[in-house]
Amino acid sequence: MEKGRILLSVTGFNPQRWHELLAAERDVVLKPDSATDPSITYAVVWKQPPNILAKLPNLRVIFSIGAGVDHLFNDPGLPDVPIVRVVADNLARHMTEYVVWRVIDHHRQGALYRAQQQKKIWHEPLQRPAEDVSVGIMGLGQLGRAAARTLMGLGFRLNGWSRTEQAMEGVTTFHGEQGLIPFLNATDILVVLLPHTPATEGIISHDLLRHLRRRNALGGAVLINAGRGKLQKDADIVRALDDGTLKEASLDVFEVEPLPKTSPMWTHPKVFITPHAAATSDPEHLIPPMLKQMDAFERGEPLDHIVDRAAGY
Amino acid sequence: MEKGRILLSVTGFNPQRWHELLAAERDVVLKPDSATDPSITYAVVWKQPPNILAKLPNLRVIFSIGAGVDHLFNDPGLPDVPIVRVVADNLARHMTEYVVWRVIDHHRQGALYRAQQQKKIWHEPLQRPAEDVSVGIMGLGQLGRAAARTLMGLGFRLNGWSRTEQAMEGVTTFHGEQGLIPFLNATDILVVLLPHTPATEGIISHDLLRHLRRRNALGGAVLINAGRGKLQKDADIVRALDDGTLKEASLDVFEVEPLPKTSPMWTHPKVFITPHAAATSDPEHLIPPMLKQMDAFERGEPLDHIVDRAAGY
Repeated sequence: MEKGRILLSVTGFNPQRWHELLAAERDVVLKPDSATDPSITYAVVWKQPPNILAKLPNLRVIFSIGAGVDHLFNDPGLPDVPIVRVVADNLARHMTEYVVWRVIDHHRQGALYRAQQQKKIWHEPLQRPAEDVSVGIMGLGQLGRAAARTLMGLGFRLNGWSRTEQAMEGVTTFHGEQGLIPFLNATDILVVLLPHTPATEGIISHDLLRHLRRRNALGGAVLINAGRGKLQKDADIVRALDDGTLKEASLDVFEVEPLPKTSPMWTHPKVFITPHAAATSDPEHLIPPMLKQMDAFERGEPLDHIVDRAAGY
Repeated sequence: MEKGRILLSVTGFNPQRWHELLAAERDVVLKPDSATDPSITYAVVWKQPPNILAKLPNLRVIFSIGAGVDHLFNDPGLPDVPIVRVVADNLARHMTEYVVWRVIDHHRQGALYRAQQQKKIWHEPLQRPAEDVSVGIMGLGQLGRAAARTLMGLGFRLNGWSRTEQAMEGVTTFHGEQGLIPFLNATDILVVLLPHTPATEGIISHDLLRHLRRRNALGGAVLINAGRGKLQKDADIVRALDDGTLKEASLDVFEVEPLPKTSPMWTHPKVFITPHAAATSDPEHLIPPMLKQMDAFERGEPLDHIVDRAAGY
């Protein structure tokens, strides 16, 4: 089989570096010649324009930029070819860094120290050891597991929740509908790394958050969402912060992105905002395994990390 | 040998919990009956009043609360008996937590994101991967090594500097006077965990800081001091921040503590202050190994973690 040609179709950012790295090994186009361009074998996409892939007769594989693939399913003309998810050590490492950063900043009372500094207050608050704090991770995929491993090494207790049953050494795991409330009841700091599917949309609601453990010595529960904005109800989070259900939140994602200027989140003293930057897709690390998969595919080998369309991730 | 009696002598905090835990196994007094009280076998101390230990005829061992022992040497009447330093897993873990917290907060541009949030700015700045950032640890004792291990796991490159030659897998090590400038030249984020001795007093000066690597893409060098305040010259750090030698600093310790209200550090936008709280001595974790050492000593076994008086740590 010849080296198949690539359609690189992204919206929302400049794909120049991605283009350069792909073009070093293969033919790359940014647009098909026509809706039925027969020359395209692979599509590498991020929020591609709707229907652009629908009628390409020789399209064999779609590669998604980014760990989540929900952006793909917004396309009504998504053809029925295998979809490969990006999996890169670098992405897991970048996400672990974000999760560890936010967990420790809440655990070590960063906001309190910053407020004290403004008032020139030299005071050491009660500090719990990590062994007394349970971090609960929703979503035990590659990213959730990598974060769990590092947090365990720091001494935190770990809980994990997933849709289907999963085991992980050192992590107390829960699954499914019936496992959700026991998981929340045992969790002080909730880290959300779920995929966005119809089943998970809006799952982070006030009703869910009120089941988190709220131990007085810890000053209440904490929410960290580094998954997808559509998993959460922004208004419910604000309410949970205001009524004491939550002590603080770190949010990298929002129902609408960029977060509208009118959102009360921006100025909420208990919210820390990053602009969907927890784990940026880095072309230097993501393109090489993509090109390798194309080579392997052309040698007749199976594809790795194929998305389960029924599950939506 | 009978179970020796303990003198618990601390200033600056309430020793109640320490007292309770020691008293569960041994006789404990908070003051000697007289300057020559013959009943005292052990002293457990933190900044003890000067000369209180000088003439106790049967004092056999001094146990220091806290990893640093510089507070002991301020006592002109310090008797010539072995001094045992506190070494506890919990202390190393607590310090690692602090170091990882501060390294990631600088690396992931926490201050920038907080400033952007105040202005409702949704913008993702250039973010270097951890693999492109070198953390240099001054002081490769138990605390420095524990922090280095965790930072390596997060993907950072590690350099280490110590007074005498030390090796550690995965860490590029430097030592002595002649190793200092090469160490600094290869370091983006400097973490200070040195003991305070006459040789290290004031070592963190403007002259030292100007040798740190300042790569533009990283926005400049960072200083984190979680060792002792007397290692640094506060005024030099302010100057280094103001002239661009340093991008930011996280300081847990200061030349004078509590940090005087008049210090420009308090309101400096590039400084993050904690009140000597990086790794608090926790009696629940520190007392059990101390009591074990006393038992072992009375069985004629050697003491662990004896302070080298000539080196001062």
